[in-house]
Amino acid sequence: MKQFMDSDFLLGTPTASELYHGHAEHLPVIDYHCHLDPALMAADTRFRSITELWLGGDHYKWRALRANGVHERYITGTDTSDWEKFEQWAATVPYTFRNPLYHWTHLELRTAFGIDEALNPESARRIFDECNRQLLHGEGMTPRGLMRRYNVETVCTTDDPADSLEHHIAIRRSGFEIKVLPTWRPDKAMAVEDPAAYAEYLKRLGAAAGVEIDCFEKLEEALRRRHDFFAEAGCRLSDHGLEKFYADDYTESDIRRIFGEVLAGRKPSEADAGRFKSKMLVLFGAMDHETDWAQQFHYGTIRNSNTRMMRAVGPDTGFDSIGEFATATECARFLDRLDSEGKLARTILYNLNPAANEVVATMTGNFQDGSVPGKIQFGSGWWFNDQTDGMRRQMNALSLLGLLSRFVGMLTDSRSFLSYPRHEYFRRTLCDLVGADVEAGLVPYTGYEKRRVQQMIEDICYYNAKNYFKF
Amino acid sequence: MKQFMDSDFLLGTPTASELYHGHAEHLPVIDYHCHLDPALMAADTRFRSITELWLGGDHYKWRALRANGVHERYITGTDTSDWEKFEQWAATVPYTFRNPLYHWTHLELRTAFGIDEALNPESARRIFDECNRQLLHGEGMTPRGLMRRYNVETVCTTDDPADSLEHHIAIRRSGFEIKVLPTWRPDKAMAVEDPAAYAEYLKRLGAAAGVEIDCFEKLEEALRRRHDFFAEAGCRLSDHGLEKFYADDYTESDIRRIFGEVLAGRKPSEADAGRFKSKMLVLFGAMDHETDWAQQFHYGTIRNSNTRMMRAVGPDTGFDSIGEFATATECARFLDRLDSEGKLARTILYNLNPAANEVVATMTGNFQDGSVPGKIQFGSGWWFNDQTDGMRRQMNALSLLGLLSRFVGMLTDSRSFLSYPRHEYFRRTLCDLVGADVEAGLVPYTGYEKRRVQQMIEDICYYNAKNYFKF
Amino acid sequence: MKQFMDSDFLLGTPTASELYHGHAEHLPVIDYHCHLDPALMAADTRFRSITELWLGGDHYKWRALRANGVHERYITGTDTSDWEKFEQWAATVPYTFRNPLYHWTHLELRTAFGIDEALNPESARRIFDECNRQLLHGEGMTPRGLMRRYNVETVCTTDDPADSLEHHIAIRRSGFEIKVLPTWRPDKAMAVEDPAAYAEYLKRLGAAAGVEIDCFEKLEEALRRRHDFFAEAGCRLSDHGLEKFYADDYTESDIRRIFGEVLAGRKPSEADAGRFKSKMLVLFGAMDHETDWAQQFHYGTIRNSNTRMMRAVGPDTGFDSIGEFATATECARFLDRLDSEGKLARTILYNLNPAANEVVATMTGNFQDGSVPGKIQFGSGWWFNDQTDGMRRQMNALSLLGLLSRFVGMLTDSRSFLSYPRHEYFRRTLCDLVGADVEAGLVPYTGYEKRRVQQMIEDICYYNAKNYFKF
Repeated sequence: MKQFMDSDFLLGTPTASELYHGHAEHLPVIDYHCHLDPALMAADTRFRSITELWLGGDHYKWRALRANGVHERYITGTDTSDWEKFEQWAATVPYTFRNPLYHWTHLELRTAFGIDEALNPESARRIFDECNRQLLHGEGMTPRGLMRRYNVETVCTTDDPADSLEHHIAIRRSGFEIKVLPTWRPDKAMAVEDPAAYAEYLKRLGAAAGVEIDCFEKLEEALRRRHDFFAEAGCRLSDHGLEKFYADDYTESDIRRIFGEVLAGRKPSEADAGRFKSKMLVLFGAMDHETDWAQQFHYGTIRNSNTRMMRAVGPDTGFDSIGEFATATECARFLDRLDSEGKLARTILYNLNPAANEVVATMTGNFQDGSVPGKIQFGSGWWFNDQTDGMRRQMNALSLLGLLSRFVGMLTDSRSFLSYPRHEYFRRTLCDLVGADVEAGLVPYTGYEKRRVQQMIEDICYYNAKNYFKF
Repeated sequence: MKQFMDSDFLLGTPTASELYHGHAEHLPVIDYHCHLDPALMAADTRFRSITELWLGGDHYKWRALRANGVHERYITGTDTSDWEKFEQWAATVPYTFRNPLYHWTHLELRTAFGIDEALNPESARRIFDECNRQLLHGEGMTPRGLMRRYNVETVCTTDDPADSLEHHIAIRRSGFEIKVLPTWRPDKAMAVEDPAAYAEYLKRLGAAAGVEIDCFEKLEEALRRRHDFFAEAGCRLSDHGLEKFYADDYTESDIRRIFGEVLAGRKPSEADAGRFKSKMLVLFGAMDHETDWAQQFHYGTIRNSNTRMMRAVGPDTGFDSIGEFATATECARFLDRLDSEGKLARTILYNLNPAANEVVATMTGNFQDGSVPGKIQFGSGWWFNDQTDGMRRQMNALSLLGLLSRFVGMLTDSRSFLSYPRHEYFRRTLCDLVGADVEAGLVPYTGYEKRRVQQMIEDICYYNAKNYFKF
Repeated sequence: MKQFMDSDFLLGTPTASELYHGHAEHLPVIDYHCHLDPALMAADTRFRSITELWLGGDHYKWRALRANGVHERYITGTDTSDWEKFEQWAATVPYTFRNPLYHWTHLELRTAFGIDEALNPESARRIFDECNRQLLHGEGMTPRGLMRRYNVETVCTTDDPADSLEHHIAIRRSGFEIKVLPTWRPDKAMAVEDPAAYAEYLKRLGAAAGVEIDCFEKLEEALRRRHDFFAEAGCRLSDHGLEKFYADDYTESDIRRIFGEVLAGRKPSEADAGRFKSKMLVLFGAMDHETDWAQQFHYGTIRNSNTRMMRAVGPDTGFDSIGEFATATECARFLDRLDSEGKLARTILYNLNPAANEVVATMTGNFQDGSVPGKIQFGSGWWFNDQTDGMRRQMNALSLLGLLSRFVGMLTDSRSFLSYPRHEYFRRTLCDLVGADVEAGLVPYTGYEKRRVQQMIEDICYYNAKNYFKF
């Protein structure tokens, strides 16, 4: 029996262990998609407590707490103390066996705090106090300190086109040696379903761009100015959060009409909203192609499904789930539109429903054009799939239906400075998969081929992302 | 090489074996969803033969026979003898390798009859005779005897609101020590597509309730009276068999109009049928919440797809399959409606298409409200998924995307008094999964955590159901 | 650590090895569905080079090359030499670890050319020269020679009803001892979306049949004549490539009207196209039933999704992917139509999306009628699923939800005379699955049952297909 989470954690064979410790473990981290708050990196102030760091915004943990029968007071409530919340979490942790939260929790305790004890009701107070002692007084426990500890080289945050990027600029000016780059996420610029909110957003966007947005041409102008501004700030990627892909037919006059109606406060029909979004996706894609960015698509979510809790605690608080949208036909048509016009940028597709893994893995092959290795990428297991099984399924589908060797690998997608062990989790899983194949005689491991296997591991952990994103 | 079906059957590691034999094997069985005939338990008479018991109503076996090229005469025919049918089954069994039927058959032979010989054409006559000898003359071979033998504590049958529950009442009066409770399954009360059959049903329902159902208000009154009657009879659960979820918009006047039209014999449009069913689901959900029952939803079937055989041998005879319905959005909307009104009862979702496992596992998280541990449950692998692979996939999805620890576990969903070994099958599979994780260092197994692992096994096998359903 | 691709390649247990080497390895190959060019078998001339043989038409390899960043010139270009193309492929091969291409490439080098060296940039020239030497001068390196080498007994090509079958006839007359039979693939006879191309096709079909097709009755007459002609030429199977199933309601006068409109050059509405295809599927099915053929359905593709490359290099050049079509309801309805009229032929369903494996495996059970063992078949992992994982998933779903024992097994679906090692790949995978189950005590392996396990392997590899297709 292996000890829990020993040095060969997740590594089932000697070759897996050799690949991980020899070729994956010590490479820098490129976290090309995350939701870290740049203000925290700019200010680099200490955290108040492990509760703030762990439970302040982590809806994975919130969901586990709710499923375990914990009252909302101890989750997002404002009338409970940090200790009271932590206590509930500590009592819930032993109920998370077989869930990635159990592993993440203990990887984070070990790698950030040097704590190897299991978190449970008996150890809760001890661990709470020790973590807080370190957070308040220990060295390197600020945002930047944690990033250095985890050997981070580059992070890409997620930012609205209307964002001033002031914190990114401040971070760069401060001489911080880790690259903190913005990512262009213009979801709100196509959210015409709610004309009032949209008008509000256009004001902010227009103000940021110095453009008064009173027609579609001005919207495009404002977006292009901000796109240029993001590029100057070091942006190399865009990102789009979609329920599904849009590839409806439309004319330019349709778009002008629809935009005008929305500006006039009229909610567009579903068909018109589809046309408008179809246009915006093409426009965004073309802009990314012009600036040689990579574009990311995260799709397939049912968001904020709980109306009562949406009112009580707001959006993105743990009431989202995996949708059952059939969108492959539209995805193909959308990518084909860009490709037909010679405007298809490097692209990463992230599906939320793992049942579509094979669909996505084969979709990428339709638009590989030989210009860049792995130009169209099947993104790493996203959100609910960001665990060993989800990662394995994504990497197996990619391996069998595409080229694993060209995979740009892992990202945290996280709001937390403690999430970097997920890269360790990923690297171990990758090495376990490949190591098992080597030991089973499925992949050769002598001479030229052995060097290639080792290089493949290093590429997926680090070099592919570095080259693909041109950091 | 392990011997076939030895004491460590399905248990791949020493820890799995330890967990099963030490913590799962001897716990009582709570079979909270089945299709046993209460009349058989009330009368408690002997079975005619192993053919009646095995082949009288088991469409799993019928499908295997048909796929093996056996003529319908030997399956549902009335002009063939028990031996002739059994002989065909015995010849088919060796063609069911890798199918759960092979395991169920031999688990049942072993645990009910003490027979360890493999069933095949050579052993057929011997086994037929020995089983029949025991069934006709052996001790404890009646319905109640078999339930005692399998350490059953509680079963919940599946019953129509118009049912008199006379057999349940008779069983309780007889002093039978095993709880036999009814389950509220009101599918027919929303089946408006066939106005003639619906009118017929309303007559029976009205007679049972003592209400003349001539308007929607009277339908609701009749249902509420029967709901109360079921509650008095010990009912703690409802169950709904759906193709997909319904969450259309409707007004109360829509419902009155539609009901009136159906009463007048007019088949409703698809849109009207959707509105009516959407209303009924909300009404049923509210009633269950009022009485603090748990509600179950079994969805995603294509039923009775073979018209020729439907005419020849009737419904539910083995011509059903897994549908490809996209219903997650409607499911979320339906649950949200109940939750928004504070009327969401404890809920179990059973999907038939295992491709939707991750959809369902994440859906449950949207409506966990902290009031009850595991309030919204992802139900155990249903129907076609009730085998090791289906169970594993369901438990893995639940583990990774929710809390396995809070799972209410197994049910037989069976018409047969010999199906209790499926609980053994489930328990072995569960222990194998968890044991393998422990041995691989993925789950800790010392001190506090070891006790928690063991308790988790016991909870899933028995205590979670006991507490969740408040038996 | 097992050596790469040793004699126990893919065989994880001693029983797997025993089953493969003792019961699978030496059986003849029945390749009941492929896309070999009968003209090549008729002429039986030598190949120009390994590049022609490997890279001339294999879109699996083309996709890998594009994904690896190789320019189209070196893939389908006409201005690059055989060596230049091969060199790019050799450089790509080490990037295909974990993809079936890596295994296929080395299995083909070994079994056809006796080369055990790994293909990579260092060995490229050596291997290129040796393969070409053998192809130009070695014995048995022609189409027929390769088929003999791989112990092929029967192949079924894929042919249009308008095809003269001249090469099939020539092959038979030549006395070639391997059966080369045509397969009826009438996709073009229902492709009414493009009236101009359809009219063109009807001319060819009419000419072949000696019928002037000026009304629907004449279309049916022409098809029936060609169907009879195919039957005389030894055809035993039909095949249909569908996006999804069609089971719309229609009247015979609808069909006549739609056909007339298409003949008049008018593109039918989507609804009319659906009606027409629904009719054609029933007609084709009835014809197959009359001649006692087996019918195959390959469905679920997104084809030729890349418009730019479609224009540049034509259809079927590697720009296809897995669709997300929900078609189970229509599939059931279509099969039910045929079954209701007593016209359901033996049927094989091949789904492209592996997420639908369980849907298909249960669908087959709805129409098993006891007349033929395994009458309705779940086809072997198709196209993208034709690799160990895809095969395993298909066989596991079939095992758990149907009868693996009755499976007709593997086919290459290939255009290449070097693809027969895929049968070896399949047989090894099958033996590994069953062997592992035996060793784990899940399948018995003594006495009667041991002989049955061994016979099951032989049946799936050879005898089931021989009996099912009545070769």
